[in-house]
Amino acid sequence: MSDVIQIQLHAPYLIFLADVADHVYAKTGLGVAHWCPERCIGQLRLRGCAVDAGLPDMDVKTAAARGARSLILGVAPVGGGIQRTWVAALEEAARAGLDIVAGMHHRLASVPGLAEAAASGGARLVDVRVPPPNLPVGSGRKRTGMRLLTVGTDCAVGKKYSALAITRELQRRGVKATFRATGQTGIMIAGEGLPIDAVVCDFTAGAAEVLSPDNDADHWDVIEGQGSLFHPGYAAVTLGLLHGSQPDAIVVCHEAGRGTHAGCAHYPLPDLVECIDTHLAMGRRTNPELRCVGVCLNTRLVPAGERRAWRRSRSARR
Amino acid sequence: MSDVIQIQLHAPYLIFLADVADHVYAKTGLGVAHWCPERCIGQLRLRGCAVDAGLPDMDVKTAAARGARSLILGVAPVGGGIQRTWVAALEEAARAGLDIVAGMHHRLASVPGLAEAAASGGARLVDVRVPPPNLPVGSGRKRTGMRLLTVGTDCAVGKKYSALAITRELQRRGVKATFRATGQTGIMIAGEGLPIDAVVCDFTAGAAEVLSPDNDADHWDVIEGQGSLFHPGYAAVTLGLLHGSQPDAIVVCHEAGRGTHAGCAHYPLPDLVECIDTHLAMGRRTNPELRCVGVCLNTRLVPAGERRAWRRSRSARR
Repeated sequence: MSDVIQIQLHAPYLIFLADVADHVYAKTGLGVAHWCPERCIGQLRLRGCAVDAGLPDMDVKTAAARGARSLILGVAPVGGGIQRTWVAALEEAARAGLDIVAGMHHRLASVPGLAEAAASGGARLVDVRVPPPNLPVGSGRKRTGMRLLTVGTDCAVGKKYSALAITRELQRRGVKATFRATGQTGIMIAGEGLPIDAVVCDFTAGAAEVLSPDNDADHWDVIEGQGSLFHPGYAAVTLGLLHGSQPDAIVVCHEAGRGTHAGCAHYPLPDLVECIDTHLAMGRRTNPELRCVGVCLNTRLVPAGERRAWRRSRSARR
Repeated sequence: MSDVIQIQLHAPYLIFLADVADHVYAKTGLGVAHWCPERCIGQLRLRGCAVDAGLPDMDVKTAAARGARSLILGVAPVGGGIQRTWVAALEEAARAGLDIVAGMHHRLASVPGLAEAAASGGARLVDVRVPPPNLPVGSGRKRTGMRLLTVGTDCAVGKKYSALAITRELQRRGVKATFRATGQTGIMIAGEGLPIDAVVCDFTAGAAEVLSPDNDADHWDVIEGQGSLFHPGYAAVTLGLLHGSQPDAIVVCHEAGRGTHAGCAHYPLPDLVECIDTHLAMGRRTNPELRCVGVCLNTRLVPAGERRAWRRSRSARR
């Protein structure tokens, strides 16, 4: 059932970097190229593009001839939205049979002409922000296999990055592990997943259950966390994901030196110990065996010479 | 802003009881007639209807002549959905200019002919399960005025009933108080509100903020709770509502004698003390002054002769 219900993307990808001038606006495309180069056949850059994902430059015709199955919109300019200057390339790709995949607020079908191009090429328009229909309410039923969920003291502290890095290292050590994506970039990297924060709240835990179905007893699902239990706007998403994931293990992600919530400067971040304790207390409702197995620190704000001391001071806390 | 963004219904209502044969399928209509008789002008019953909300029987023509502004679908038969035998009455009401208001999974606009009838009468089709667009992400900003939220050990334990009863009693005592509706029946009773469990999870706390805006310092919003922090399927809704409501007070609702969660028989209900403590711990994130001011017990499952003893045993716990 879960295979049917998750969003499914077809590789190989042609990564569309459009005409953006700064890496900041191409985070999605760069992330996809970095984490799953084996799914990427090339990059398509328009005139003025100053970003390089390290993939072979390729036009639509060549990519299609080499078997590309999806064009991934890897850019998000200020104000969102699909620019007029991009439409010709998107239409060409759709007519050539490449699915067009985007994670923007703007729906792809609302771009004039694109739906017709997709129909003529037999391609799909896939908005990875749009959850599939018919998600169930969470049942709380215990599933087979093991699960690790990355959680955080705040949004945007490295929960996706940590989940991807943990998955890669588990696989390198020969442990059966699958990255489970809950956000748009994650879904593009994994090729499947569910945009958990776009699900109607009654079905958030149910969506998390669908995302990591029954599996082998020695298999780990490593689930990309969302939001923070402490964030005044996003905690609902986090709790639904925590309950539905039924993790055996959490890894708490934190940005060293960040003092208050993103977008809510009047809310101080929780202490790491408080953060761990709250997740364990709430998460044990659906998995009494839940443990915290680690902390991922993003130390970019800490001067290089102080990072080791910073880490040591935190690890001595318990 | 909040006035614009909440669902707004126009009274007086004509309550449509259709042809249902059992009170169980008319809970919505009976609840509306019970809690806001002053908003109800009459009831419309088709042949075969065996339910009586205690309102004057009235046909559409008479109701329209007396100023009715909305027809409220007060029934929910097994399998949901609007029956063919009802459509003529609904079309007549819409052509007469009455808004058609329903809380079914089926959208009103999907009933053949109804949209045209509404257009010709200048009436609206209002699905109270559909949240308004453009809800914000919760900001956590402290609002003026005071708030009470009903919470529960489970779903369907009396959170709406308790909020309505508390509001009525506060008003009787001369305290400024407003019932704030978060579910379909509550919205029909209040004439406004937001269907909180139908909101996309990223905006659940934000919707709760919109629902109870800044108010007089001595005014109480009494907010209808949803779900339960302990329910494996619905806790996300509850946490978003708790964070966004920023309650000063909670009242915990419980059905005496119920042992496991509705629909999740493998999950025992929390202890009342655990339930209170968890709500306080989580709710104090957005309002550090949060207190539990009472417990509402639904004792229908307890034999009449044992209720007093049951209540006494619980109130002695702390």
